[in-house]
Amino acid sequence: MNSLIEHLRTQVGAAHVLTDAFDIAPYCTDWRGRYSGQSTCVVRPADTEEVAMVVKACNEAGIAVVPQGGNTGLCGGATPIKGEVVLSLTRMNRVRAIDTDNNTMTVEAGCTLAAVQSAAAASNRLFPLSLAAEGTATIGGNLSTNAGGVQVLRYGNARELCLGLEVVLPDGRIWNGLRSLRKDNTGYDMKHLFIGAEGTLGLITAAVLKLFSRPRAVATAWTTVPAPQAAVALLTRLREKIGGRVTAFELIGRPALDLVLQHIPGSRDPLAARSPWQVLIELSDTMESDLSTSLEEVLFDAVAAGEAGDAAIARNDAQAQALWALRENIAEAQKIEGLSIKHDISLPVSHIPEFIARCDAALAANFPGVRIVCFGHLGDGNLHYNQSKPAGQDNAAFIAQSTAVNRVVHDLVHELDGSISAEHGLGQLKREEILRYKSQIEMDMMRAIKRALDPHGLMNPGKIL
Amino acid sequence: MNSLIEHLRTQVGAAHVLTDAFDIAPYCTDWRGRYSGQSTCVVRPADTEEVAMVVKACNEAGIAVVPQGGNTGLCGGATPIKGEVVLSLTRMNRVRAIDTDNNTMTVEAGCTLAAVQSAAAASNRLFPLSLAAEGTATIGGNLSTNAGGVQVLRYGNARELCLGLEVVLPDGRIWNGLRSLRKDNTGYDMKHLFIGAEGTLGLITAAVLKLFSRPRAVATAWTTVPAPQAAVALLTRLREKIGGRVTAFELIGRPALDLVLQHIPGSRDPLAARSPWQVLIELSDTMESDLSTSLEEVLFDAVAAGEAGDAAIARNDAQAQALWALRENIAEAQKIEGLSIKHDISLPVSHIPEFIARCDAALAANFPGVRIVCFGHLGDGNLHYNQSKPAGQDNAAFIAQSTAVNRVVHDLVHELDGSISAEHGLGQLKREEILRYKSQIEMDMMRAIKRALDPHGLMNPGKIL
Repeated sequence: MNSLIEHLRTQVGAAHVLTDAFDIAPYCTDWRGRYSGQSTCVVRPADTEEVAMVVKACNEAGIAVVPQGGNTGLCGGATPIKGEVVLSLTRMNRVRAIDTDNNTMTVEAGCTLAAVQSAAAASNRLFPLSLAAEGTATIGGNLSTNAGGVQVLRYGNARELCLGLEVVLPDGRIWNGLRSLRKDNTGYDMKHLFIGAEGTLGLITAAVLKLFSRPRAVATAWTTVPAPQAAVALLTRLREKIGGRVTAFELIGRPALDLVLQHIPGSRDPLAARSPWQVLIELSDTMESDLSTSLEEVLFDAVAAGEAGDAAIARNDAQAQALWALRENIAEAQKIEGLSIKHDISLPVSHIPEFIARCDAALAANFPGVRIVCFGHLGDGNLHYNQSKPAGQDNAAFIAQSTAVNRVVHDLVHELDGSISAEHGLGQLKREEILRYKSQIEMDMMRAIKRALDPHGLMNPGKIL
Repeated sequence: MNSLIEHLRTQVGAAHVLTDAFDIAPYCTDWRGRYSGQSTCVVRPADTEEVAMVVKACNEAGIAVVPQGGNTGLCGGATPIKGEVVLSLTRMNRVRAIDTDNNTMTVEAGCTLAAVQSAAAASNRLFPLSLAAEGTATIGGNLSTNAGGVQVLRYGNARELCLGLEVVLPDGRIWNGLRSLRKDNTGYDMKHLFIGAEGTLGLITAAVLKLFSRPRAVATAWTTVPAPQAAVALLTRLREKIGGRVTAFELIGRPALDLVLQHIPGSRDPLAARSPWQVLIELSDTMESDLSTSLEEVLFDAVAAGEAGDAAIARNDAQAQALWALRENIAEAQKIEGLSIKHDISLPVSHIPEFIARCDAALAANFPGVRIVCFGHLGDGNLHYNQSKPAGQDNAAFIAQSTAVNRVVHDLVHELDGSISAEHGLGQLKREEILRYKSQIEMDMMRAIKRALDPHGLMNPGKIL
């Protein structure tokens, strides 16, 4: 082990091989403090060649590697377990190229998502991926977990925003797949294997990303809806009328809104009427256009059809931001309120009303006093279907219920053709849970792929598989 | 062999196991008549279970299988070579489900692309994949070759239009991956391995496809541009102003247009001025809107910037169809003119002007009298960069040059970061050629995947790898 560390020091410089327990501690615990492991050392290479040398040396020494970006993952996918070398990509943070005619940019894995967005904006382009941790999360981590966020409805997940990858393979060879082509049919699409693989098949060092035209017009509205089924009908109506301009469609249950109003200073309900469900809608357009009027017209028809009630359309940026703050502060408000059990699930949009009705009923029957905080990206079929601790319940007793609550929620998600991890991946958190739901055939294929590309099992062991 | 055929007859019915040479001939030669092979028998199963039984029986007998849809492929990917069983999917042509709230449809692999489009339209939805062979080509073949076509600029290739797959694996097991989710991060994305794999890893039997809102407004224009660089600048200008409304941007070189005007009855140049290059632009919008005026404004600015010259905007559907006919009849006009050497290439959009200038010069220097017919989907970086036989040249002498011409074209494509197969795949046609351009590392990964999923090499051997 010492000889490996010495070797790594000669390769990347002693300053970038951390072994002191104090220095490596931040890399060994995940952002939420749920996972903590041991690491032999943390290596911070400066470029792809150094990454390749580190991976090759670890491979030859039989030591496993854990790739880590901003360490903002939610499933323990970037946390070492027992003595792996943590390979931190944060020094690899250059934007290598921006091609405005081709609408692409080439970036290193350690760029933060916010830096990628800024570089695109500086070239009058949009990189649409957007999520809460964007100031710290890196694009390499976003791609490795196929991150989602608030604009998936219009632009897709991280996977759909990537045209090419550079990857260091488990044996230390560098695969240059940095293509910037919209069409390339020359064999198996290897990049799609590495995207979403959480670093278990190879280590993403750079990527070619798609860019888009920047929107010139935005409209934002908040409306009550009587029930989830009405929200689905409103979404379908909006899409039929307005198509690709719908860039966000967020469903917010009353308990989620109440938590924000209670705990986040300055929050206020934009509508006088108290409704069990509300929807936040955002439209955007590359051309200057009167989106607010279009939105008003659709909402007018929706009210007549019984799909929507009162509505408020933002008249300026400040009002729009206030509406978004109600949505974005839900997680924080839940945290202030106390413990919660969280689920990151997805379903066909059409199955969401049945899911909510049946799951609410099943939880109420099995866990008296349960408080359901349901909200999420309805346009993507993605719900954050959470449970907050009942006021009187003991913390330990509440947490002890987690497995039983998960079982009810995930079994119903599975029955209704959904996924138990929509945005966050499997990591360590759902590695066992997924065995209950994914077919033996699919698990066999995944294991065959893992063996084919990482025969010694040295890339991020204990994650996904 | 006879016992296998007998067994297959008991499984799928004698009427659906063809062995007579006359009956199987159409399945053994590709659409263009370039590839012809031998087949033991042609089996036409009725459903997924029958496909699985056939594949399992062939696997156990050690006989290879060639999946075939509409047999419209351009690279020999669906043609047997020496004694494989051809498994024709054309009887599996049901639309299993359409979910308008989720904007998805589930279809069997043997549905023609036109039937898929029609079923979507009948539910007031758009399935945007569109290509010349759509009346015969099947969606299973489209997915297996990751087909492109004229709407990729806005909606993506077949790959981007697919959310889930049902696949019969080489050992005859059925993988049900028919998910209809926009977000699902639960391990390796297996569907992306089968899409574009040309049936070499498994056999696609059904798919979940994305649907879109139907456009209510369309605008179509034809404009001259002084050079390819101006066309790229005009595309960038259009995207910045009009964004996602740009649904087609086709570049057409003068020789291509002249062939159409000469050979296709009723064709006429929409513009008086004779220009070396022209562009066909299509905008579309889900909302009723005055796209022609928007297009006029952008073209006005483009003329002032020297990017465009004369332009004609279609005033009605008939005019729009006449403009599209000029583009769509190029292949037919080339055929009437005589032999041609064709290239289906892609490049970063920004590299296309340099490619055309340098490749034109290199071909002119090496092949005196060469006639270059260049056109294609500029918006996707996809050119059909073809050579027509010079008037005086002997057919055999012209064809004898193919390899040397390919070498010049493909070497330059590779130098400029492009792909030698944009839309059509590798099949048998480019299986050797790709070895010159794809890295050893990537070929190694592809072979490792093939071994992992098809260890006995019985799925469509001799294609891709």
